[in-house]
This record gives sequence, structure tokens and C-alpha cells, in this order.
Amino acid sequence: MKILMTGMLAFFSLTLLQAQTADSLMIRRIADEILSNGKAYENLRQLTKEIGPRLAGSSGMVKSEKWGLEKMKSSGADKSWLQQCKVPHWVRGGADAATAVYTVPAIGTKNMLPKKKILDVVALGNSEGIGLKGLKAPVLLVNSFDELEAKKDQVKGRIVFYNYKFNPNYVNTFQAYRDAGQYRGQGPSRAAKYGALGVMVRSMSHATDNHPHTGATRYDSAYPKIPAVAVGLRDADWLAGQLAKGEVSVQLKTMGRMLPDTIGHNVIGELTGSVYPDKIITIGGHLDSWDNCEGAHDDGAGCVQTIEILRAFKAIGYQPKHTIRFVLFANEENGLRGGSKYAEEAVARKENHILAMESDAGGFTPRALGFTGSDTQFEKFLSWRNLIAPYGCSEFVRGGGGADIGPLNRALKTPMASLNPDTQRYFDIHHARSDVFEAVNKRELELGAVNMAALIYLVDQYGL
Amino acid sequence: MKILMTGMLAFFSLTLLQAQTADSLMIRRIADEILSNGKAYENLRQLTKEIGPRLAGSSGMVKSEKWGLEKMKSSGADKSWLQQCKVPHWVRGGADAATAVYTVPAIGTKNMLPKKKILDVVALGNSEGIGLKGLKAPVLLVNSFDELEAKKDQVKGRIVFYNYKFNPNYVNTFQAYRDAGQYRGQGPSRAAKYGALGVMVRSMSHATDNHPHTGATRYDSAYPKIPAVAVGLRDADWLAGQLAKGEVSVQLKTMGRMLPDTIGHNVIGELTGSVYPDKIITIGGHLDSWDNCEGAHDDGAGCVQTIEILRAFKAIGYQPKHTIRFVLFANEENGLRGGSKYAEEAVARKENHILAMESDAGGFTPRALGFTGSDTQFEKFLSWRNLIAPYGCSEFVRGGGGADIGPLNRALKTPMASLNPDTQRYFDIHHARSDVFEAVNKRELELGAVNMAALIYLVDQYGL
Repeated sequence: MKILMTGMLAFFSLTLLQAQTADSLMIRRIADEILSNGKAYENLRQLTKEIGPRLAGSSGMVKSEKWGLEKMKSSGADKSWLQQCKVPHWVRGGADAATAVYTVPAIGTKNMLPKKKILDVVALGNSEGIGLKGLKAPVLLVNSFDELEAKKDQVKGRIVFYNYKFNPNYVNTFQAYRDAGQYRGQGPSRAAKYGALGVMVRSMSHATDNHPHTGATRYDSAYPKIPAVAVGLRDADWLAGQLAKGEVSVQLKTMGRMLPDTIGHNVIGELTGSVYPDKIITIGGHLDSWDNCEGAHDDGAGCVQTIEILRAFKAIGYQPKHTIRFVLFANEENGLRGGSKYAEEAVARKENHILAMESDAGGFTPRALGFTGSDTQFEKFLSWRNLIAPYGCSEFVRGGGGADIGPLNRALKTPMASLNPDTQRYFDIHHARSDVFEAVNKRELELGAVNMAALIYLVDQYGL
Repeated sequence: MKILMTGMLAFFSLTLLQAQTADSLMIRRIADEILSNGKAYENLRQLTKEIGPRLAGSSGMVKSEKWGLEKMKSSGADKSWLQQCKVPHWVRGGADAATAVYTVPAIGTKNMLPKKKILDVVALGNSEGIGLKGLKAPVLLVNSFDELEAKKDQVKGRIVFYNYKFNPNYVNTFQAYRDAGQYRGQGPSRAAKYGALGVMVRSMSHATDNHPHTGATRYDSAYPKIPAVAVGLRDADWLAGQLAKGEVSVQLKTMGRMLPDTIGHNVIGELTGSVYPDKIITIGGHLDSWDNCEGAHDDGAGCVQTIEILRAFKAIGYQPKHTIRFVLFANEENGLRGGSKYAEEAVARKENHILAMESDAGGFTPRALGFTGSDTQFEKFLSWRNLIAPYGCSEFVRGGGGADIGPLNRALKTPMASLNPDTQRYFDIHHARSDVFEAVNKRELELGAVNMAALIYLVDQYGL
């Protein structure tokens, strides 16, 4: 019995070893293909430089959908299509502007001299503009919502300036973002509740430059939809310093408007499974970007990585067992209508989804893979760590997903995975005009695709 | 007995737990200090923008030594001094230039038209220039030393162009550098052996730009010291393509010259140990850089991280048990005289060095700590992983060190550690004009200092 057991163990160990070696070699082939012949970087150049911004409802959205569909075809998808959905249609309507008006003591007299300073601002996404005549009001600085509540009697007739700092002590910058993000989301309505006429928010970033960072705000319908802008960090510091010395008024001009919903599309390419055509693995990023930037990291990177994995699988002749869907989601930034539509249709068609994976944290050097699923599934996921770690994702962590695949997870309990690149540079450029092609490193982008492809390959081979 | 053992175990576990908690809190304090009040980034700006290039023997070297000494003092060193050493004195002597001369078919005729193209080149460090009259010779492309040997009869009177590619399939780019670096080091003399008049080397990089990358070459005294340049990647590709169509000559002009040795200095700051003043921990980077760049990543980053750790220890009032030396080494790039001198003096003074640590792989996001020492020491090093991993260095690997601390390790068997940041972007800028302040990210730089400081703190507390 003992000999038999030992023999069986040896047999299984050998089989496992052979499988691991074969997997290791296959992942090496995928990596070599992407690192030597990769098209992700050139595709990102096209998407950012030839198309550019692509907010839901914009002409860039339409161009990028056409471009994406063409890429799915030319990269070898068995099928490719556009999945239609309604999308919100917010427009900036013109250039945003803010001018601080303040006074300085005139040298040698007791008089005060009026001074002006142009502030670098960008209207928050979904915000309503003040219109052509603009708004001028004194500024009330608050460092937090607690301070807003304490000063609520001073809010009326003023522009509230939320100067909440992006906490540098969080090593993972996404923690700082979650912490500060509430001021962008809830700030305008919480100030409007007390009669504020407008809101300025310190940019959610610890960049060393002055570019303002936009992002969606959410109005509470109980209060007036007041104009709201994000202000660059240097100007935020200047404004705080000036307010410590005396009163500052700001002239604000924003022209944002929410138009009626329009039509957008998820762009989908598919490799049909050879063994389990009805079991689906989804991998994707989102095609839309804010209108003030090229959306290179957010989320052009995730899109071209998705396309690259399709291209690489075809280039090395890998025929998946499961159906793999490569999806460029619509409207992540200000509505999530693409991800919602994808989940709705999956439910309506009674589809069987075994994993959804997203890359939407920038095209930076890969560090970790995140996973959301059962304990058993997580154990299986962990067992692949040594196969993928050599390519950068040496950390396998609990909790993975993405905004666009969230609805699928909520609807069908589909396990989710995410590529977690290094977070240090992301909020330097996030939703700012500095999120451009030049901020993306070719190899970091490619290695992200390698790590995602490796996980998709293993899930395709062994399921979860 | 069992109860006693359990009790003792519980006691030791509790003590260990308390120690780990105290260490964890202290490392958090160090990190908060560096991330919130850090001066590394501003110091790097001064070093790169106000001083700039600082090759051994240059005026930049002298200025940077003075700057470094002042920083050691203002950051709170108990003692600080300059440690004198002889350094080589290579000068570029003027602008390097290369023009390709080739022919293209004249449309509609059988004639060939002469054409010229300026190539972006930089003379290799330590190389001898051709002088004012320049050199013009036909180019012989070889892809490897094997190909050079196979074509050795064609070498005489030509410029040999080593077109060996930086292998993209190595995930760790330092492997690609070790692989390709031999062409820069040995290429000129191996070509001179067969009568070559000059050498061009494909830059050791996979950048997407065309900046040429210099670095030291080593002449074999048995052969003529022929001129040698590195050529930018796009121009290297163009040259290879043109040579596939027909003959190309290159006009080369370089003015490099090795002058007599001059005087340089290691810059040293010290915190004197409160318990073991005679046991020394060394931490450092190298102050010199190539003359064609700001040397921001190589190795301004290592220098300002070193100074930052001193500053942070003093700022939080940490009094080390061991003596800690903060060293900005001289002349790493083309002589290693600083590191050699430091080891020589350590031997002469019979110093007891318990660890030397270096940061010389760029100021990029920290990923790993490397360690060279005995198995027992390595075990101890490994036991600290969970304390440091939250700050970025989640990988603790065997094999750590640095060029400047190598001589100390060889002389005294001093254990060595290194900060291993992410490697993807390093060879994009290494020894090229693109190694500038703007390529360094503030937080990545700071986090490198945090991870180094944490290890130094633990070694100071517990020894090795």
C-alpha cells in the first residue's frame, strides 16, 4: 500500500510537474510574442494621438469604437461586434476659467491694491456650467466636510473651496484617492445645501505640477446644481495661502451641460472556445476617456492590452478551450452604461461566465493580480503564482475587479480578476491633461498584457 | 514541563510580537517623515539642475562634492568629511559627430545620387578621439562577436558597427544589459585587432527614442585605441537597413582624451553609534555621472536617498546603536576609485563593517531588496520581509550589492544589500541625455529611501 501510494504520488507529482513545465513554456511563448512583436504601444499611439479624447457621446467615442472594431478583426477575432447601449452625453461647452481677485497692501501706504490671478481649473464631469455671464463670489476654504458643517452659516453666497489633501502617507495611492474622492463626488451638493454658489475642489493628486484633475461629480437632486471645478495643486496651495491673509473672490466661468442620452457601444471581439464554447472568459478595459486628456493610462492602456492578448494568442496559434471575449467597454467615466449593458445581456442570454478580468489602473509596471471569488477559487488562483511572478505580478491578492466588470459580478456572481500595476504615478496624471501617450512606457504596457494573458491562459486551461 | 515550555513559548512569542509591533511603528514613522516632509526630490533638483553633469575630474564633480558635504552637515551628520582619492580624468573634448554617406538611385536613370544623413552618436567614455581631421571609412555591420570573427578579413580599414540588440525578452532589463554590454566594453579593441579604424555600437537600450547611450569602454593595450561611439536606436536601425541595400561610409569626429589622473573625493556623513560606535553600517550611491546627462537616475537618486535617510533619522530623533556612514562615492562610472579608496581605508584602519548597502539602479519604484551574506544572515534578512513589504520591497532576494561597495565586500567580506527598483524604465535613460530630473518621480524616489531606511533601521537594531 505504501509503495502504491508513493508510486501514485510520484506519478501525480510528475504529471503536475510536466503540466507546470508545459504551462511555463507556453507563458514564455506568450511573453516573447508580446515583448518582441507587440502592437500595444503602436495601437495606443493611434488611439491617443489619432483619435484622442473619447468621452461618451463625443465624436471621439464614435471614432474609437470604429477603430476598436477594426482592431478586433485585424487581430484575429473569430467574431466581433458592437453592443449598443444608451450613454449619457455631458459636454464641457467651452473653456473653463477661474480668476482669483484679492488685494495686497500698497507699499508705503495703508491702501490695498486689487490683484488678479488666473487659476488652472477644470470643470468636474457631469457638472452644470454657470453660463456666459459667469459667477463672482468670495471663497470659503474648508479642509473637510466636518469643517463645512462647522462653518455652515458662512457658506451662503460663497464659493466653497474643499482643500482636502491627497494623503501622501498611503503607500498605495488608490487609498488616498478613495479617501479624497468623496469631496469631488459629494462636495458640490453638500455645499449647495447651505447656499453655496459654486465649488472648487483641490485636485485628487500628489503631482508636482499644476494640472487640474477632473472626474465625475454626483448632484443630489434635492439641492441646486451649482458649478464645480477642480483646481491644480500649486494654485490650491496659493489660494489657501492667500485666504490665510485675507478675503479672496473668484470669478468662475464654466459651460458644462448634460444633453439627452445618446448611443454608444461596447466593442467586443471573441475567440470561440474549442471545448467549452458556452463558457465565457471576459477580459477588458474601457474605451471612453475624459475630454481634457488623451486617456492614455485611463484607460487606453487597458484597451490596447486587451487587444494585444487577442493578437498574441492568434499569433502563436493558441486556440482557447473556453470562449474568450475581449471587450472595450463604453462609458466607464460618467455612467458605467457599457459595463451595465454587458451584464444585462449576459443575464438575458443566460450566459455562463467563468471569469471577468479588467485592466483599469494604468499601463504601469505590473506588480499584482487581484482576485475576487470563493476560497477554493482563490486557492487555485494562488497556485499559479510561481508561473506568473517572473513576469512582474509577484503579489497575488484578494480583492480584484474593475468598474466595468462589477455589474457582471453583481448579476451572475462571476469571479473577477484585475491587473494591479504600480500605483505611484497613476494619480499624477489621472483625469488631467498630462494623461498622454508620452506618459506610458512601452515595456510596462506590454508586461501588463503578458501578466493578464498568462492568467487568462491558465484559467482557460484549468478553469476555476 | 509541557506547561513551562508553552509558557516560555508564549513569553518569547509575545516579546517577538511586541518587538515586531514596535519596529512596525518605527518604520511607519520613518516612512511618514520621508513621504510627508521629504527633501530628496528638491535635493535631486539642485544636484541635477543647479550642478548638472559631474564626471570625475570635471568642475561638476568639484561642485557636487561641496554640495554633498553641505547637505551632510545640514541634514544633521555628527561628522562629515571628504575622503580624497585619485580619479581618472577623461574629457569628451568637443561635440561628437557622425555623418553617413551613401547613395540612392536617381529616378529615371541608372545613376546613383550621393546622400548624407547625420547620425545621433555619443563617444564612449574613456575612448580616444580621432581628432580634428576626423575619419571617413566604409561601415561593416556585425550582429555579434561571432560574426566579427567570421568576417575578420573584411574588417581592415573599416568602421565596425556592432548592431547587437538589447534583448526585449529578458523581463529584468539588467540581464539584457549584461548580455549586450560586452560590445561596448570589448568591442573597440576586438575590432582594432583586425585593423578596424573605428567602432559604432548600437545603444544598450530599448528606448523608443533616438538618444545614444554612452558608458565606459576598455581598451586592450595590445591594439590601437580606435575611436568608438554609441549610436541611437532609430539611427542604428536606419543604418542596418541602408547597409542591407548597399555600401555606407561614415564620417566620424570625436575628440575624447584621457588626461592625467586628478583628485576627487568620497563625501561622507556619519551618525556615530550610541552602543557600537566601532561597528559600521555604510549606505550610499555614487555622486559622479556621465558628462552627457544630468545623472538623475544614475545615480543622483541614490545620493539624495542616502542623504534623505540621514535627514529622516535625525528628524524623528532616531539615535542609531551602530555607526552609520552615509557615503556619496566618487568615480563609479569610469574607474571605481571612490569605492576602492573607501575599502582601502577601511582595511588600513581595521574598521569593522557589518553591512554596506547601495542604491544605484535608478530612483524608480522599489520592488526588491537584494542581499549578499551567509545563509544565517540571509535568514535573518528574510525574517524582516513582512515589516518592509508594505512599503514596496515585497521581494527579498539573494544577491545584493553595488559597484561602489563591491571593493569593501571583497576586502572585508562585508555583507551587502541593494535597493532593487523596478527595471523597466532604467535603460531607456541610462547614460543618455534623457537621464534628467524630469524622468524621476517624486514618490518613487521617496519610497526607495523608505525601504532602504527600514532595512538599515532593522540591521541597526538587531545586527546581522
